[in-house]
Amino acid sequence: MERVDHHHLADERNKAEFNVDDMKIVWAGSRHAFDVSNRISRLVANDPIFEKSKRAVMSRKELFKNTLRKSVHAWKMINELRLSDEEGIKLRSFMDQPGFLDLHWGMFVPAIKGQGTEEQQHKWLSLANKMQIIGCYAQTELGHGSNVQGLETTATFDPKTDQFIIHSPTQTSSKWWPGGLGKVSTHAVVYARLITDGKDHGVHGFIVQLRSLDDHSPLPGITVGDIGMKFGNGAYNSMDNGFLMFDHFRIPRDQMLMRLSKVTREGKYVASDVPRQLVYGTMVYVRQSIVSNASTALARAVCIATRYSAVRRQFGSQDGGIETQVIDYKTQQNRLFPLLASAYAFRFVGEWLKWLYTDVTQRLEASDFATLPEAHACTAGLKSMTTSATSDGIEECRKLCGGHGYLWCSGLPELFAVYIPACTYEGDNVVLQLQVARFLMKTVSQLGSGKTPSGTTAYMGRAKHLLQCRSGVRNAEDWLNPGMVLQAFEARALRMAVTCANNLSKFENQEQGFSELLADLVEAATAHCQLIVVSKFIAKVEGNIEGKGVKKQLKNLCYIYALYLLHKHLGDFLSTNSVTPEQGSLANRQLRSLYSQVRPNAVALVDAFDYTDHYLGSVLGRYDGNVYPKLFEEALKDPLNDSVVPDGYHEYIRPLIKQRFRSAKL
Amino acid sequence: MERVDHHHLADERNKAEFNVDDMKIVWAGSRHAFDVSNRISRLVANDPIFEKSKRAVMSRKELFKNTLRKSVHAWKMINELRLSDEEGIKLRSFMDQPGFLDLHWGMFVPAIKGQGTEEQQHKWLSLANKMQIIGCYAQTELGHGSNVQGLETTATFDPKTDQFIIHSPTQTSSKWWPGGLGKVSTHAVVYARLITDGKDHGVHGFIVQLRSLDDHSPLPGITVGDIGMKFGNGAYNSMDNGFLMFDHFRIPRDQMLMRLSKVTREGKYVASDVPRQLVYGTMVYVRQSIVSNASTALARAVCIATRYSAVRRQFGSQDGGIETQVIDYKTQQNRLFPLLASAYAFRFVGEWLKWLYTDVTQRLEASDFATLPEAHACTAGLKSMTTSATSDGIEECRKLCGGHGYLWCSGLPELFAVYIPACTYEGDNVVLQLQVARFLMKTVSQLGSGKTPSGTTAYMGRAKHLLQCRSGVRNAEDWLNPGMVLQAFEARALRMAVTCANNLSKFENQEQGFSELLADLVEAATAHCQLIVVSKFIAKVEGNIEGKGVKKQLKNLCYIYALYLLHKHLGDFLSTNSVTPEQGSLANRQLRSLYSQVRPNAVALVDAFDYTDHYLGSVLGRYDGNVYPKLFEEALKDPLNDSVVPDGYHEYIRPLIKQRFRSAKL
Repeated sequence: MERVDHHHLADERNKAEFNVDDMKIVWAGSRHAFDVSNRISRLVANDPIFEKSKRAVMSRKELFKNTLRKSVHAWKMINELRLSDEEGIKLRSFMDQPGFLDLHWGMFVPAIKGQGTEEQQHKWLSLANKMQIIGCYAQTELGHGSNVQGLETTATFDPKTDQFIIHSPTQTSSKWWPGGLGKVSTHAVVYARLITDGKDHGVHGFIVQLRSLDDHSPLPGITVGDIGMKFGNGAYNSMDNGFLMFDHFRIPRDQMLMRLSKVTREGKYVASDVPRQLVYGTMVYVRQSIVSNASTALARAVCIATRYSAVRRQFGSQDGGIETQVIDYKTQQNRLFPLLASAYAFRFVGEWLKWLYTDVTQRLEASDFATLPEAHACTAGLKSMTTSATSDGIEECRKLCGGHGYLWCSGLPELFAVYIPACTYEGDNVVLQLQVARFLMKTVSQLGSGKTPSGTTAYMGRAKHLLQCRSGVRNAEDWLNPGMVLQAFEARALRMAVTCANNLSKFENQEQGFSELLADLVEAATAHCQLIVVSKFIAKVEGNIEGKGVKKQLKNLCYIYALYLLHKHLGDFLSTNSVTPEQGSLANRQLRSLYSQVRPNAVALVDAFDYTDHYLGSVLGRYDGNVYPKLFEEALKDPLNDSVVPDGYHEYIRPLIKQRFRSAKL
Repeated sequence: MERVDHHHLADERNKAEFNVDDMKIVWAGSRHAFDVSNRISRLVANDPIFEKSKRAVMSRKELFKNTLRKSVHAWKMINELRLSDEEGIKLRSFMDQPGFLDLHWGMFVPAIKGQGTEEQQHKWLSLANKMQIIGCYAQTELGHGSNVQGLETTATFDPKTDQFIIHSPTQTSSKWWPGGLGKVSTHAVVYARLITDGKDHGVHGFIVQLRSLDDHSPLPGITVGDIGMKFGNGAYNSMDNGFLMFDHFRIPRDQMLMRLSKVTREGKYVASDVPRQLVYGTMVYVRQSIVSNASTALARAVCIATRYSAVRRQFGSQDGGIETQVIDYKTQQNRLFPLLASAYAFRFVGEWLKWLYTDVTQRLEASDFATLPEAHACTAGLKSMTTSATSDGIEECRKLCGGHGYLWCSGLPELFAVYIPACTYEGDNVVLQLQVARFLMKTVSQLGSGKTPSGTTAYMGRAKHLLQCRSGVRNAEDWLNPGMVLQAFEARALRMAVTCANNLSKFENQEQGFSELLADLVEAATAHCQLIVVSKFIAKVEGNIEGKGVKKQLKNLCYIYALYLLHKHLGDFLSTNSVTPEQGSLANRQLRSLYSQVRPNAVALVDAFDYTDHYLGSVLGRYDGNVYPKLFEEALKDPLNDSVVPDGYHEYIRPLIKQRFRSAKL
């Protein structure tokens, strides 16, 4: 008598109180975006070359070669099917295996676009766009990550030959970590200290050829290789993150990226009239795409945990009858549904950040730099907050799947391992929150000066009100009032920032004060960023949303997100008197009610992500819920099951149990 | 000009204000315990067979075979060197590779000792103790983990043949997860529903032979294999966690473990007069050892992160001079030092739990069961709390090591992967906290009845005082007063428990109320468990501690631990009025001061763990601090670096850059 567990998910889908197809459009952002994702994800899923299930048992070399195979196949498809840029990006993303294409298209090409002159763009992009050269982005060094200005690699101009001499003066100056560098890239954008005539002009970018285009051997003066295994099985081990050392390696002068500043034939350093702020525009772009990826990754984990929580049954029956679905336990809901809500929250704040980037770009083109610092702080903070929450959320989803979540085939171990670098790359999350804090302190200090805070700091302009207001929440339902929720978050964020500013002012030396109060400043920055996400989610659900029952579901998720944060950071809200203990307790009561409302819709809410089983890569998260038989199928694929009696029996097990190990050669 | 980074650690060691050798004794628990650990860890470290550094690049089969080799070698050493039980356990632990020995010695042998009759013990332990048979512990099934009473495997007595018929009636009834089962074990203790004469007597244990002792092939009626890859690289993939199905497999009646109950020749089910509570005694034992392992694992991660934070420098220099050690940043201290303090806290509460287990055992032998429920709740809660905190703490330590923490050779990815199952095995952490909560609710409900709560719940006997007292903290120094700290934690824990009890009483149906309030109950249980750890730490530092400066350091760590928890759970403390916002803010100020006092002692405080570089298995945590050159050495060992031009170049890279991929066969 086999249990037919996949019936559970059909039941679950029947329970949904909204139209899941309409929700899919909202999640994707538009019908067009949905169509592209839907079509390309199935194109990838149906192609046997993109198969992922054997990654865990591949050796490092096999995995790397498999990545080459997939990458080149993807590039071939992009060309043969004449896919658009948007479709190509989706295809690489659904391929779901880190490799050199990510760095070539995501870092090398944009660096040349952003920092190269028109001439340089013409020359190098025509090669790069056809992949006649493969590039990577060589910035971080063994001894320097966050502190880019501390990089040690030098690029010394030699006027005699009109060349730069790229050199690694110490072991710690070796480039270390760049993806695609170790074994694949023929070229790199290398960041080095520019030295002309004995003067150090700081860190600049240079296009450097690393390997011969004929036989792929590293050029003389270049030492390059792979930095070895990383976290997890499969995961980023498909990527050849590399090291790179230069021994007085020479490149022509015109391979310095010269859009922002240049070195003349005579060795004179000249800044161009292109505003340096453009660099920040690029950072806004990269970080908004990281926020967008956070929602994608968290949604994957939540999709797996939600479906499996509906399939899995445990306890609740005393008589051998059918047990309770674990998704019905409040402890499960209390951990899972806030993550479901977070996935949607990050999706919508990511959508808004896309708009922000467009806005910033248009302003930059009109030489309007006024909103840039605020946009920069906002994206830095949101990158930090969403990636940290997503990393923790993936692991929480794994735990929500109980013991089976620990199996590689649950998909969650690899998702965790492949995701967590997002907390470190493109700005360490703590360092980024400190940048936000600096911006907040500056904003607070200017409050009296008549300068009106704008954008995401606009609420600080209402400081007088927010410092003295009291929350009007009187019953649990009041916590569904957008104004009351926003006021609580605004009061908390503002009061924490003002307290930090007051404490800072007690120090004679501001920098010393800043350094002493770092931990408080990080908390104030986090409060500000959470306010942004909550306010953008509220704006979304208060706006026009089409589809049967869709808006109601999103409202539920929005208030789950806000009230979950309120409970998690209750200490902040209480110690700033933004809410009272009774109001905090009412928020909890409202949360429980919202969980009950989400419960029948949970499976449909993760179906709305429209992930294929290929992309999810999880036996526990299968669309059909047919978990247990498939766990067996996966197990039988393990190489250890190739034979019934394992290799090593005769050498080790048999001598042991026959008590012959004293004489056996071990 | 190479930087000589290992000088940093010598400087750090010179700064210490206490005698590290004295601290080593305190950490180990006694001079004897230190001597054993110190000697055995070096014995393992110096034996090339126990080498660990290649685990990441071994295939599944190689890794498994390597485990066989190490295990048999360890057993050989234990015999040849005539090691004591204590020494043998240490040797297996310092071997640091999960394998069948863990289950044979940790679960199979204890199960027979605890549940077997004297006759059974005599017969089976004489085989098991010499390892003439290898055993595992087959309890969990594909469909059942936490709900042991829901197991589906049946053991039906057949009076005709005087045998039990062990059978797996469904796919979900397959045994799934037992370590050592997949490929090694010859025997298992199998848990199955005992059925005699059509009546189900619930789950009982049976000794079952699985494989032939001649050729290791599974016996007819047995299907057994490995369940496949698990989280991470290396880690638990060295272990053959297995599945097992029975097809009407027959065993003699006397292989039912019959100490607590038995089946007679006639098929009659008879309970013995041995008290069932003894089973709980075993659970107390197993869980106290898990708490002890938590401190060991967290200490490893903290040791790595602390040493690397002293070696690593970033920012703080504007002129290319020497940068600031990252351990000097308050953000780093604020994350790292509470974990250092937690490692010590868990160490001491583990020590106390060992005492508790001895106490419980003595009482059980005297048929005194009065303290058992409290001891059971206490160990369940501490198992849950310490393993969750350790899992999170290891990942936090990894993040504290920045980008390089993501490298496998940092040791942290594998430590995380190998540690996290502790949150699930021997009781899912959330399920365990609910057991604690049930016990607390019962204790609260009996408060008026004249029954005085004892042991770790003794504070509840002072409910009247604790419900109305106000914290007397007036300045930051007051937070170093043990009475004031304890009162805050007691008030918070009691008030949360009482609030839960009050809310429960509002439900007509208690079980429905319990199920509705699960999330609050978990928080109340956590508060209770944190109080236990804090109070045992305070008791330790208020007691007699020898060694120059040792007590002062432990006091600092004790108050860091308590005040860090207070800040982390400030919402609890404020909403129960256990402290005021001002007192919360004073606690933060005291924390910062304590961090400054720990800072010069940090490296010596992790040296006190006395871990060998072999056991740590981390390039970042090396005792000599010589991190950067060794990162290079590790990188060069990766198989991808076997050749300069990678395998796959001719098939994939060359056709791509030569634009020949259209014709090339991919």
